[in-house]
Amino acid sequence: MADQIREGIAANTRSALLLGGNGFLGRHLARALTQRGVSVRIYDRGSHDDAEAGYAYFRGDFAAGERLAEALEGVDIVYHLISTTLPSTPHTHALFDVESNVCGTLRLLDQMRAAGVNRIVFTSSGGTVYGNPRTVPVPEDHQLQPLCSYGVTKVAIEGYLRLHASLGGLNAAVLRVANPYGPGKARIGVQGFIPTLFAKIAAEAPVEIWGNGSVVRDYLYVEDAVDAMLEAASWTGFRLYNVGSGVGHSLLDVVRTVERVTERAANIIYEPGRSFDVQEIYLDIGRITSETAWRPRVSLDAGCRRFWAAMK
Amino acid sequence: MADQIREGIAANTRSALLLGGNGFLGRHLARALTQRGVSVRIYDRGSHDDAEAGYAYFRGDFAAGERLAEALEGVDIVYHLISTTLPSTPHTHALFDVESNVCGTLRLLDQMRAAGVNRIVFTSSGGTVYGNPRTVPVPEDHQLQPLCSYGVTKVAIEGYLRLHASLGGLNAAVLRVANPYGPGKARIGVQGFIPTLFAKIAAEAPVEIWGNGSVVRDYLYVEDAVDAMLEAASWTGFRLYNVGSGVGHSLLDVVRTVERVTERAANIIYEPGRSFDVQEIYLDIGRITSETAWRPRVSLDAGCRRFWAAMK
Repeated sequence: MADQIREGIAANTRSALLLGGNGFLGRHLARALTQRGVSVRIYDRGSHDDAEAGYAYFRGDFAAGERLAEALEGVDIVYHLISTTLPSTPHTHALFDVESNVCGTLRLLDQMRAAGVNRIVFTSSGGTVYGNPRTVPVPEDHQLQPLCSYGVTKVAIEGYLRLHASLGGLNAAVLRVANPYGPGKARIGVQGFIPTLFAKIAAEAPVEIWGNGSVVRDYLYVEDAVDAMLEAASWTGFRLYNVGSGVGHSLLDVVRTVERVTERAANIIYEPGRSFDVQEIYLDIGRITSETAWRPRVSLDAGCRRFWAAMK
Repeated sequence: MADQIREGIAANTRSALLLGGNGFLGRHLARALTQRGVSVRIYDRGSHDDAEAGYAYFRGDFAAGERLAEALEGVDIVYHLISTTLPSTPHTHALFDVESNVCGTLRLLDQMRAAGVNRIVFTSSGGTVYGNPRTVPVPEDHQLQPLCSYGVTKVAIEGYLRLHASLGGLNAAVLRVANPYGPGKARIGVQGFIPTLFAKIAAEAPVEIWGNGSVVRDYLYVEDAVDAMLEAASWTGFRLYNVGSGVGHSLLDVVRTVERVTERAANIIYEPGRSFDVQEIYLDIGRITSETAWRPRVSLDAGCRRFWAAMK
């Protein structure tokens, strides 16, 4: 049963367009889709260096909608993994954030309708849409008070997907993904703590920690995140789920886990905390585990062991 | 005590800029500010026909930011009452909605910072940001699932005001106002039910009701709404409140009240319900009444009597 679920992608999904498919999640998702016989199209602003993979590749600027119509032709599902900005982008740069991400997504939805594509999976952000949660684990219906522009735009995009689903017949899955980690390239500056930690420990370089290491996050192994994205291809209507491990780990927890896995000691340097950082958050995953077949399968320890094995 | 509060506006408020000051709320607010010795500037896209009032008048397109810098010079507080769209604007027109309202507000915040204006009161929408509420009366921390693009943009603007308050030192008051009513002009199509009802009954014209008349709303007399806007001038940091009567009335309730007040019978024509209409909503006003001196003072019956007296 578990293996069938892990293999599962909707039978009528033959062609998928991955917006931002060059990113960390996108590369893992593209491989998983290809393994399941799905034809993969990658849309990204950068050039692609994975020549052997055989993906159809569309290079364009999402904010301007370049080549989107062409990329959408004959596609069954769109995975929208693009964000033009980061959680750390200052709120004073919000205008670009809204114009590129929110307006870009609205133009995408127009083009999807024109192309007859009625299914989208959007990766929202489990770590920023809630702001500093009142309670952990934080459920989906917790109030949304993002502390960064990135989070405000994710909430707005979620809102428009809900509207297009209820008024326009779109099938839209919003995945509020926790902090995904695993082997593979990520854009510089968005590596995430665990890949950075492995890289630093492997290089015997000092590890910077913002604050005192007590900041708690929900880390999700990339294969679990990909499984949720595959599963989402068969959902109908509007579905919105937290996608996390459901467990909180402090930065120091993670350091100890990685030290144990690598059998090396980390050299930690403490830096001042950052104002846009939420202190403690991990996700309540009761909704997705009760309503769908998905659940996280890889613990932090197991995920770190796989990561380290892939690095060596 | 009650009279003092009604008179109250922060002593250091000498000059106020009313964005959208030509609208229904704006005209009432402008008069109330003038009566309290505040110098009033009106910014609006239309021309002003209230020549005798002595307001400084700035005509411009908010989305383009025309004349905003000039209008902001030396101002103590901005009342942001502009929306370029309506709750009934189709979701497929959302791109304009976001570009004009959300991006327009972000440009405004930049210009306020440049001009050294650090105080804003924004009229959000108690009737649309929550969508169909799970419980009534609906409290501020209820989840936000707007059923129209208008509501999505209100939520996004609220989010950016929260960010600018917490990160940029802005004093920002968000008032999720219920359905305001009272004498005075409103833009065509945004009259609201009560003014329309009075006009139709006065003209002995048939009254159209969408649905079966059971739709429940929170109607707030305009003087109560204005009182909250005046009071908000003295709040610091980020404050977000429902501003309503706290009582729900069905459309048929309202018809019966107006029939009683006017001593005339309404000729009702029932039209099909509208998909963007929330079925039942009224606001929990516990937060604002416990944290501030404001409370609603005019019941539906009293408000309708004042309205009718003003019309005659």
